[in-house]
Amino acid sequence: MSSSSEQNIARYLGIHRVIEPRGTLPQPAWKLDNTPSVYPTETLIDVQKLHIDSASFTQIAKVCERDTERMSKHILDIVSQRGKMHNPVTGSGGVLLGTVEQVDEDFAQEHHLTGGDAIVSLTSLSWLPLSLRRIHKIHLDRAEVEVEGKAIFFRSNPLAKLPHDLQQALVVAALDVAGAPARVATLAQAGQQVTVLGAGGTAGLLTLCALRQKIGSNGMIIALEYSEKALQDIIDLGVADVVVQADATHPLDAIEQVRHVYPAHDYQADLTVNVVNVPGTEFATILLTKPDGRILFFSMATSFTTAALGAEGMARQVEMHIGNGYMRDCGSVALQLLRDYPALRAIFTKRFGTAV
Amino acid sequence: MSSSSEQNIARYLGIHRVIEPRGTLPQPAWKLDNTPSVYPTETLIDVQKLHIDSASFTQIAKVCERDTERMSKHILDIVSQRGKMHNPVTGSGGVLLGTVEQVDEDFAQEHHLTGGDAIVSLTSLSWLPLSLRRIHKIHLDRAEVEVEGKAIFFRSNPLAKLPHDLQQALVVAALDVAGAPARVATLAQAGQQVTVLGAGGTAGLLTLCALRQKIGSNGMIIALEYSEKALQDIIDLGVADVVVQADATHPLDAIEQVRHVYPAHDYQADLTVNVVNVPGTEFATILLTKPDGRILFFSMATSFTTAALGAEGMARQVEMHIGNGYMRDCGSVALQLLRDYPALRAIFTKRFGTAV
Repeated sequence: MSSSSEQNIARYLGIHRVIEPRGTLPQPAWKLDNTPSVYPTETLIDVQKLHIDSASFTQIAKVCERDTERMSKHILDIVSQRGKMHNPVTGSGGVLLGTVEQVDEDFAQEHHLTGGDAIVSLTSLSWLPLSLRRIHKIHLDRAEVEVEGKAIFFRSNPLAKLPHDLQQALVVAALDVAGAPARVATLAQAGQQVTVLGAGGTAGLLTLCALRQKIGSNGMIIALEYSEKALQDIIDLGVADVVVQADATHPLDAIEQVRHVYPAHDYQADLTVNVVNVPGTEFATILLTKPDGRILFFSMATSFTTAALGAEGMARQVEMHIGNGYMRDCGSVALQLLRDYPALRAIFTKRFGTAV
Repeated sequence: MSSSSEQNIARYLGIHRVIEPRGTLPQPAWKLDNTPSVYPTETLIDVQKLHIDSASFTQIAKVCERDTERMSKHILDIVSQRGKMHNPVTGSGGVLLGTVEQVDEDFAQEHHLTGGDAIVSLTSLSWLPLSLRRIHKIHLDRAEVEVEGKAIFFRSNPLAKLPHDLQQALVVAALDVAGAPARVATLAQAGQQVTVLGAGGTAGLLTLCALRQKIGSNGMIIALEYSEKALQDIIDLGVADVVVQADATHPLDAIEQVRHVYPAHDYQADLTVNVVNVPGTEFATILLTKPDGRILFFSMATSFTTAALGAEGMARQVEMHIGNGYMRDCGSVALQLLRDYPALRAIFTKRFGTAV
């Protein structure tokens, strides 16, 4: 590689903004330069909202006892320490919503952008230099933070323009987890039995709809969920064939519940999708899957070693995938599901919708 | 599920040996009951050697400054604290070698075992109750620990009988990482370009041979390795098409090295296999893979969130797999490679062989 093409890759990825440790990529870096003005090849976004990753938001809410003032301070501290909203405990981020303030020419061309466009990031916040002037409000019910701030996008960072036919808050919520339904659609096959753990979460509900479209009416969808409230949403959505209340952190109990609700059938799935937002659900996921089946771990709370050594220790040959949040069409897949399923849109509106 | 079939599953998995936290499976549990006498459905093994997982051994050697006395004490401490050789820092284990002392009838039938048979565990040590009376010797060069101790196998734990035509130390070393070549063979396709990171390690060398058999002479194997010594072994093995010395913890440098040694070609692989035993190589792995390619992470040092958010942040659609160490035939696949490749056997003999 010539040194100039190497420099191009470095700049494309945003390595020039890394303060510590030097030479690493922005996401794994501890600290980024979050100066809110653009260097060449960068795009500046005026940020209005953060939609914090569910695992991260849950952790912050817990440590601050759901006190929004303490949570605000906690979030501002993370951002000022790291130059990005990258929760050091969970390692995860979220997405942001803002408007284009100053756009790099190449970037503008690739994403059909002009100044003033409303956009949503399709990359994790753990990747983007962010500076916050203040936090206006935290919505505990939807992991949303209203802010005044600026973010930098590098050319490698994906984003989506906001569509006009769907409410902003719904779009942000859906795009945050858009990778899950898009990826699931590439793994599931018509007629399969598929189990979804954490099916009542945002990613879970989208996943159920994507699965229904993919596996057809001969397929069987088993939805597991712990929360009563989310369970009712799954029932209202009406796309799962079997709905089970179970705690996936207790593998044997979870198996027992599935067998109780779905007796006289194999309780093990061809494909299991894990979108649970708490740790410790790897074993239930493996044990609820056929020994030669497949698993898609989409939860950021997944432990790599627990999954790998768990399958090995239990002599299960299962093929396990790391949920990669990016697919070329993931934004449009997720938004189309919101258009295709009025019941899904209703649940999203109830959860994330803002008064018009 | 009837309460008796539930009890059977619990016993099959070894949940009755978990001390803390109660009700979890033995692998994620902090502490197991390592009493060296069998309860019903258990098998007792007289343990002679531990072959510690590479990530774990490296960590222990580092923290003890490669002083084998300190390392012995460190290992004995872990085992007495947890009732198993489960490194709390790396989360990984390794395998053990021993002889059958007292065998459960069902287990004996499934594995064709009788008392006195020499066996190797195919499950991680992090799963097995272990008690150590003493450590005789630590072989720094091959992550091997000679011990006097007892282990318990549950019915769910896979193991392999030692074959008679291969040296014991070689068999142990190969079976420890046997999942990698077996799994790789299911993912690679004839004619593909495949890159192996950490190709000079035990898992790496086996993987190179499995790949050569699978992708054929039209396929292209690029082997990356950091250590000079291991690099020479890759060259001596003679199955990789391109051999590159590079540090995978520095993604841009690694790309530059591959492009330097393999110019005028796409440096990105259809399939990349990561068997590196240090953390921080996820980004290099992703960047060295075609955006729509596949990755198999077989390193226990892999971070789930770094891989997931890294691919997303760089807008790479790549399909990522968690290396599952168990496959039905993985033991025989790995041992057959040792028989098929005399050069591989020679390197294994040099690294792990004991004077006859």
